[in-house]
Amino acid sequence: MGDLSDCAVLVVDALRATTTMPTMLARGAEAVLPVADLERAYNIKMRDSSVLLAGERNNVPPEGFDGGNSPFSYTEELVSGRRIIFTTTNGTQAIERVSNAPWVGCASVVNAEASATLQQKEARHGVIVCAGTKGNVSLEDVLAAGAIVDYWPKASWTDSARIAHIVYERYRDSLGEGFHQADHAQSLRDTGDTRDIEFAASLNIVPVVPVRQINGWFRPG
Amino acid sequence: MGDLSDCAVLVVDALRATTTMPTMLARGAEAVLPVADLERAYNIKMRDSSVLLAGERNNVPPEGFDGGNSPFSYTEELVSGRRIIFTTTNGTQAIERVSNAPWVGCASVVNAEASATLQQKEARHGVIVCAGTKGNVSLEDVLAAGAIVDYWPKASWTDSARIAHIVYERYRDSLGEGFHQADHAQSLRDTGDTRDIEFAASLNIVPVVPVRQINGWFRPG
Repeated sequence: MGDLSDCAVLVVDALRATTTMPTMLARGAEAVLPVADLERAYNIKMRDSSVLLAGERNNVPPEGFDGGNSPFSYTEELVSGRRIIFTTTNGTQAIERVSNAPWVGCASVVNAEASATLQQKEARHGVIVCAGTKGNVSLEDVLAAGAIVDYWPKASWTDSARIAHIVYERYRDSLGEGFHQADHAQSLRDTGDTRDIEFAASLNIVPVVPVRQINGWFRPG
Repeated sequence: MGDLSDCAVLVVDALRATTTMPTMLARGAEAVLPVADLERAYNIKMRDSSVLLAGERNNVPPEGFDGGNSPFSYTEELVSGRRIIFTTTNGTQAIERVSNAPWVGCASVVNAEASATLQQKEARHGVIVCAGTKGNVSLEDVLAAGAIVDYWPKASWTDSARIAHIVYERYRDSLGEGFHQADHAQSLRDTGDTRDIEFAASLNIVPVVPVRQINGWFRPG
């Protein structure tokens, strides 16, 4: 990762970490702490049993977890007023990689406009970091980046932004189709999480932006 | 760069290194040696004055060079039967980065079909490496990658291939327009190299593929 010391960074992992985090907060969770390391998640839970453990490894929740990586796991009943430790295969790793940025938010198709608007308020260079899948770029992340870039002033676009926007324009009227083309969607269909794909492809339905606080927890920005 | 030990790699630097290399060979050059380092280019020339020095730094040919990075510099009269040392800001660096791959070719819009066809003949995993510009992805390289991917069997596409193909489809009927949208085209317009952009955007007009030989020189594959 390059120098992000003057950047307002939106991290995108559309399937599913940065779709699920806004959803957790929208349903009343107090705060979410993304951690890259599974052991660290267990350690925090041992010290404070009131937190919820959430996330996945290879699309499945690890042992003892309160929920996986599906936004549908996090009902108001489960999360209201709770703090959540969240660890996933790609998304939370990407959040950790941008830890040197002064402003970090979590964005996806579901909060594209809200996240672009909040990012633009920062007097900083706007950057979108796509989590991808195990080091490779993911179609659904680029699609989500394009949905966000759509709210940026066109004069600020780089070639990467243009590419993302072309991908978004291609699927603008059928975002679900775009998500279903992606490699990652195949593995979610295999585990029966098809409705997660439809949810993740729904533009602006969760207008909440998780923003990193000074202590590393994410709260609505 | 990941493990390329079983890959057939096409390197793409559409503006302009991997457009100019096929053109040099099509106009009769015997072989082209891409070198990343400018000092190394001068050293080879000192030992063998019969070679031509070709290339650029920041779009301009370094002192003592026989030509820059424009395909129009390399007329049949200049290059016929000659060996050429070629060094550029991004493209030849990218070729050096994939030196561990067993098969390397140079590809662009001008030889998209020929390079895809030759690559498919190798019984290896097909990869396209886009040179980009100073570490950032370039629209014109992704466009060229999409033109190549168009000749791949669709079943072999990854998400990156799909993204490149979406970009290609967007500009399919007006590749020059796509090239002109790219950041790099702006700097070429500034130096008056507009016809290089039109040339680089011309599909399959130079059906020659520079392929790396055992000694590192590139000859028609």
